[in-house]
Amino acid sequence: MSDTTSSQWQPLPRLRTHEQVVAEIENRLNSGKLKAGDRLPPERQFAEALGVSRGAVREALRILEAIGVVEAGTGSGPTSGSRIVKDSTVGMGMVLRIHLQLASFTQDDMIETRLMLERLTCHKAAGVVEGDHLNELRRLVTQMRGPHTVAEYNDLDTAFHVGIAQMSGNGLAAAMMAAMREAMRQAMVAGFENLDDPAGTMSAVTDEHQLILDAIAAGDGDGAAELVTKHIMGFYHVLGLGTSTQMG
Amino acid sequence: MSDTTSSQWQPLPRLRTHEQVVAEIENRLNSGKLKAGDRLPPERQFAEALGVSRGAVREALRILEAIGVVEAGTGSGPTSGSRIVKDSTVGMGMVLRIHLQLASFTQDDMIETRLMLERLTCHKAAGVVEGDHLNELRRLVTQMRGPHTVAEYNDLDTAFHVGIAQMSGNGLAAAMMAAMREAMRQAMVAGFENLDDPAGTMSAVTDEHQLILDAIAAGDGDGAAELVTKHIMGFYHVLGLGTSTQMG
Repeated sequence: MSDTTSSQWQPLPRLRTHEQVVAEIENRLNSGKLKAGDRLPPERQFAEALGVSRGAVREALRILEAIGVVEAGTGSGPTSGSRIVKDSTVGMGMVLRIHLQLASFTQDDMIETRLMLERLTCHKAAGVVEGDHLNELRRLVTQMRGPHTVAEYNDLDTAFHVGIAQMSGNGLAAAMMAAMREAMRQAMVAGFENLDDPAGTMSAVTDEHQLILDAIAAGDGDGAAELVTKHIMGFYHVLGLGTSTQMG
Repeated sequence: MSDTTSSQWQPLPRLRTHEQVVAEIENRLNSGKLKAGDRLPPERQFAEALGVSRGAVREALRILEAIGVVEAGTGSGPTSGSRIVKDSTVGMGMVLRIHLQLASFTQDDMIETRLMLERLTCHKAAGVVEGDHLNELRRLVTQMRGPHTVAEYNDLDTAFHVGIAQMSGNGLAAAMMAAMREAMRQAMVAGFENLDDPAGTMSAVTDEHQLILDAIAAGDGDGAAELVTKHIMGFYHVLGLGTSTQMG
């Protein structure tokens, strides 16, 4: 069947009880027995049904809450159990953010990876031009023109780029984009606040968003991808974030 | 400072105790007071120091273990506390896998996003050609020629692509690549096992790996990126995974 090394016996993985609970929920999601919107039983019944301690159930639910898979139930009664949610943004953002802080990867890695995603999603969005999404993007650019705190402006900026990713139809790219923005939020807001002329920069950045939007609306994918590249490289340069990033 | 909506009062986020513990650890990572390799105090001392229950500490540690940030301590004594690790693969793989099962995103999304990462990392790897990494990649391709189970072959295949990403120097891309492979492992192995001629397919796939490696070794980034695109599109096509993926 194969070489000797891998056919030798190896210790079985020791799953702790709460890991078994997570694995069981994952199996049910995999087989379709559980889906977004479904409720899990209240903690006590759930523990009894699985034949494990309430502590193990609670630990498993805490993990699934942290990665954005379940939403904690409150109170008691039929609606008190945790609910399966369908939003990977928070969970992935948390994981990316904490690993960025652990220096598992650098800000340059993040910027470079973001750039690839932005080019992909701009390109795709231009190919699927769609009224509702376009109107929402136009609304965001208009809103960007108002007076804003740096944090508010950053939220609109994030909504614009994530909106393009959603319009592209690639849900993973959209979730990763949102997660990266969450992970870099603090650094971006702080960088912006240190600028000599935040309002002037906001205005220039909004103009760039308008150009990207125009290219997408015109169905010009290559143009949108080039514009978003220039936009992001220039933006990080102005903010003094990242040092060696260049396109592959 | 800004428009009325956002200056209205909003409920403060209610952090539960275990979330406060996670946040405190995250703050210390952020400020550099904690780093990879450091140990956290044993559960009981940790809970006393933070003035919280042992249950809250345990829930926080379970979350951080699940996302690959801490490694559980065993036994008692000075080395019994959990240790900060520095590997985002497991945690991100778990998060991606469970959200794939939740259908937060599709297999097509995953393949398309993988393709972008592969092109980026092949391109960069060709620009930083480096002896040790190249030798490791050569060793993997040689090893692929041996007889293997489908699962073993998939592991070598994963090591090859993640190895290119590591050679590229982008740690985030490497971690995401590894996470995606983990998330798709089951589907890929099953797809491979259903082929009429798994051994013949392995041999053809290994030849493609050799060509990609040659292009990287020759410093031909564009060539490597094109070859990896052809390789991946062809591979998923043969396996019957994904349906509508096309490059942006």
